[in-house]
Order: sequence, then structure tokens, then C-alpha cells
Amino acid sequence: MDPGLTRCGVGIVDVASDRSATLVHVDVVRSDPSDPIEARLAVIAAGLRAVVDAHRPDVVAVERVFAQHNRHTVMGTAQASGIALLVAGERGLPAATHTPSEVKAAVTGYGSADKRQVQTMVARVLRLDDLPKPADAADALALALCHAWRGGAAVAASSSLTPAQRLWRDAERLARR
Amino acid sequence: MDPGLTRCGVGIVDVASDRSATLVHVDVVRSDPSDPIEARLAVIAAGLRAVVDAHRPDVVAVERVFAQHNRHTVMGTAQASGIALLVAGERGLPAATHTPSEVKAAVTGYGSADKRQVQTMVARVLRLDDLPKPADAADALALALCHAWRGGAAVAASSSLTPAQRLWRDAERLARR
Repeated sequence: MDPGLTRCGVGIVDVASDRSATLVHVDVVRSDPSDPIEARLAVIAAGLRAVVDAHRPDVVAVERVFAQHNRHTVMGTAQASGIALLVAGERGLPAATHTPSEVKAAVTGYGSADKRQVQTMVARVLRLDDLPKPADAADALALALCHAWRGGAAVAASSSLTPAQRLWRDAERLARR
Repeated sequence: MDPGLTRCGVGIVDVASDRSATLVHVDVVRSDPSDPIEARLAVIAAGLRAVVDAHRPDVVAVERVFAQHNRHTVMGTAQASGIALLVAGERGLPAATHTPSEVKAAVTGYGSADKRQVQTMVARVLRLDDLPKPADAADALALALCHAWRGGAAVAASSSLTPAQRLWRDAERLARR
């Protein structure tokens, strides 16, 4: 779950023991900026609960929010992240948080990758015909992959590349030809 | 509701049209700091819902959280405030937020009043035999009074003192004798 008040990305993936991944579900839960905050949070909670109840994931990963970033919107994002964690807790699911740079590094090999690189790698890893849009949807899938690869699957030797890093390296080599 | 991860104050008051106020309920919902965040937020949500469902308030006031304050705990406090607002939204109750200095000014007449002054005035206004403790409980009651006096009751002429300001002035005069 990529928390946000206006757009909250939610993605579900199946990750096999060989770290290969399949898309299960991706969506963006939206709330109307003209509605009062309490109504918006209720809409987000209902949307996230519907996805969790439909797909029954084993674990929920939520993007970590930092106080020092985007001061104008950070409180709303933090409140939405509280709702995402609450939905996990109410269903008895363990939750984990990852920073945006952890997610980017896990999926693209670069901690400062841009949105397009994240979308491209998510599409490649999940064998999608199109880039997942909007970026919040791709971010939610990237977060799910990051969590599965970092903690949910066997840890690769530190000297080896992750599947995403290998794919990215191969894509770069192809692009240079 | 005075949001917090470890202690979340919740107070309910009845305020008459003459601005006199009566205590209905006060409590502190606690969560165990050794529990994971998702479980803590679920405990807080359940505790706040129980109070709202038992007493069916007309409106919920939540203390506003600022990104620049207490950086170490602010994200947890912001997440708890999201839960408080969510509980209001899910029950169809309007919610309002007030800053700590608005609350202190409304209840004591001083925007920078200390915790003891807030507790003292809350006890006096609600005719309590003892100071409400812990401070989170007093803060929740102060917030409820602030909201009722600022918006929920007829607005007094700007040149006049609020009931709390009159009480505080009288208490100060007594203390000087």
C-alpha cells in the first residue's frame, strides 16, 4: 500500500520461492479532496479493506512516511498510512514498512530511480503488456515486490544481483546495442 | 480525542446553550509500545469506537498534529490522529481539529498555559473533585470544551471573556488574596 489521501495505491503480488512474481491485483483507492478529512479516511479504509478481504494477502507492506518530506501534505499522508496499517492490524496481518529508496533499490537496483524506471521494472518483472498507471499503482506493486524480495523470500548472497537488478542490467545492455 | 500511540485521551462533555458543561465520560485508550504498530492502531481504533458507540456524541474534536513538532514521535501521533478522524467518519460524525494553543486559550485564557493550568480549569469548569489525570485525559476534555465553546455554542461578543476566562480570572484573584 502506497499511502495517500487523494490516491492510495494498493497492489497484490504472488511471489514464488524462486523470487518470480505474478500480478494478483492493482488499484488506486481515491478520495475526493473536497470532502472532509474524516469522510476521506473512511473511504480509504473501506477501499483498502475491500481489497484485503477479496485477496487475503499473507502480509501487508506500507511505504514509510517521513516527517521532513513534503511538509504541506505529510500529515495527510501519515494519516493515510495509519489507516493502511490499521487495516492490516484489524485483519490480523503482519505489516512492514519500507522507505521509498529501499523500494527503488530493490526493484530497479537504484535507490534514486525515477518513477518511469520503477514503472518499467515493475512491468517487466510482472510481465505486464503496459506500464502500471498511475505511478501510485506502480509504487504499490514495487513495494510489494520489495517486501517479498527483502524479507519474504530466501535471502540471496549479498554479492549476487536481485532478479530486478539482473533484469535492469540486461535491459540496459539491450538499450546500448 | 487527544491522539497518541501510547496514550490516546478521549473525553465527552455535554455543553448547554449557556455554555455550562458537564462531564459525560473520560478515559485514556492505551496501546502497548512493545506491540507492532498495526496492532497498536487496531487497539486504539477499537477503544475509540467503543467510547463513541457507548455515548453517541454529536461531533468529534481531534487535536491537530503538526509536522514540525516532536519529530521523533510525530508520525505515530499523526497516524493515531488519522485513526481518531476515521472513527468519526465511519460513524458519520463531523470532525473538527483544533491546535493545542487554541485549546489552551479557550479553556484557560492563555495560549501557552501549562498542563497543570489546563487540568485545573477543566476540573473547575466541569465541577470535578479531583484534577483529571493523566494529562491526556484533561487535554481531551479541554479539546471538547474548546470545540463546544468556539463553534458549538453561541459566539460571545469578542470583547467579553469566555466562561473559562472568567473562572480563571476569578481563581487568580482568589489566589492573590
